Amino acid sequence: MDTAYHPTPRTTPTRYRDRAHYDRETVHRILDESLICHLGYVSDGRPVVLPTIHTRIDETLYIHGSSGSGPMLAARLSGMPVCVTVTLIDGLVLARSAMHHSMNYRSVVAVGTARIVDDPDEKQRALHAVLDHIRAGRADDCRPPNARELAATAVLALDLVEVSAKVRQGGVADDAEDLTLPYWAGVVPVGLAAGTPLPDGDLDPATPMPSYLR
Amino acid sequence: MDTAYHPTPRTTPTRYRDRAHYDRETVHRILDESLICHLGYVSDGRPVVLPTIHTRIDETLYIHGSSGSGPMLAARLSGMPVCVTVTLIDGLVLARSAMHHSMNYRSVVAVGTARIVDDPDEKQRALHAVLDHIRAGRADDCRPPNARELAATAVLALDLVEVSAKVRQGGVADDAEDLTLPYWAGVVPVGLAAGTPLPDGDLDPATPMPSYLR
Repeated sequence: MDTAYHPTPRTTPTRYRDRAHYDRETVHRILDESLICHLGYVSDGRPVVLPTIHTRIDETLYIHGSSGSGPMLAARLSGMPVCVTVTLIDGLVLARSAMHHSMNYRSVVAVGTARIVDDPDEKQRALHAVLDHIRAGRADDCRPPNARELAATAVLALDLVEVSAKVRQGGVADDAEDLTLPYWAGVVPVGLAAGTPLPDGDLDPATPMPSYLR
Repeated sequence: MDTAYHPTPRTTPTRYRDRAHYDRETVHRILDESLICHLGYVSDGRPVVLPTIHTRIDETLYIHGSSGSGPMLAARLSGMPVCVTVTLIDGLVLARSAMHHSMNYRSVVAVGTARIVDDPDEKQRALHAVLDHIRAGRADDCRPPNARELAATAVLALDLVEVSAKVRQGGVADDAEDLTLPYWAGVVPVGLAAGTPLPDGDLDPATPMPSYLR
């Protein structure tokens, strides 16, 4: 398998082309790090964008169909074009000029035709991976779904074929004539941080905190 | 003005309807807290979702047309249906059962027809607000855009009319029969955190760190 995706007109940005990346490793890392994705589809000719939970197994992106949308939507989207976008924010870029303010970010856009996951084994593997995507190790440390729960859950799959990443990192890019302006310039790093886990009120206090939460 | 938006079929979720909110205060707070939005539109019948920077002034959402898409795209989208979605992640909800794993989140979906901002005064106000959205106080603490820079920047506007928020907060929602299972259950709070600002290498060391970054 190629180490990179092939750019297409749909995955070639019109601006900042030097920020585009097609190597699988970069794309995979962004998809794996982001806790959520934004799923786009067309409904009655109009765009709809919904946040939901995803995971990746090899070259397939699995989208969990429960987050507010539900199995009905997943069934309706099967065979339809979708766009799945994932964005991580890494920094606020404060330039001396208003114009050069920016953000450091890493994003992935994957387009293609969604497919509903009918095969029970694939569905179970995907749901297992969704849990491990939230926290690696969690899938084997909870009660697995029973037949009724599996039937009530829908999973969409999107093969990673038409995919690109965009990455902006580094410092401010002010014009040379602005460098001596008396404004603070630099980057404020930002990122998603986890706080102290809060045990459920009904939890037996003897239950140890799992290692994957420490 | 009503204190709430009017639900429409497009802003009424098919599942978890109790998570839907239409009051302006909730919607505004989510839009204002999120650093980025995901802009959805239809191109050749297919969905496209791109991350970009936004801001809100009263009941208008302004979308900055530079983040990878550019003025050309903004011009093309004027008069077109768009969907702007903003999502904040607040927690990982780890239930005893795989099925009840979830996230605490706050999201807003705004749909409508985009309009390119032609009026120079409105454009300047919008760009000022975009900077203050990154950090309140920044817009007046940098070099304002000159005429050339203003011309090279495009701003899209979306009036906040057809809008809804979805909010999931609180603890795990396990079934009663699962409460005694031997798995840790609870919520891991997550949120975007800012690190120590990193001054630009060319910055005069005498330049003080602005108060809005402390």
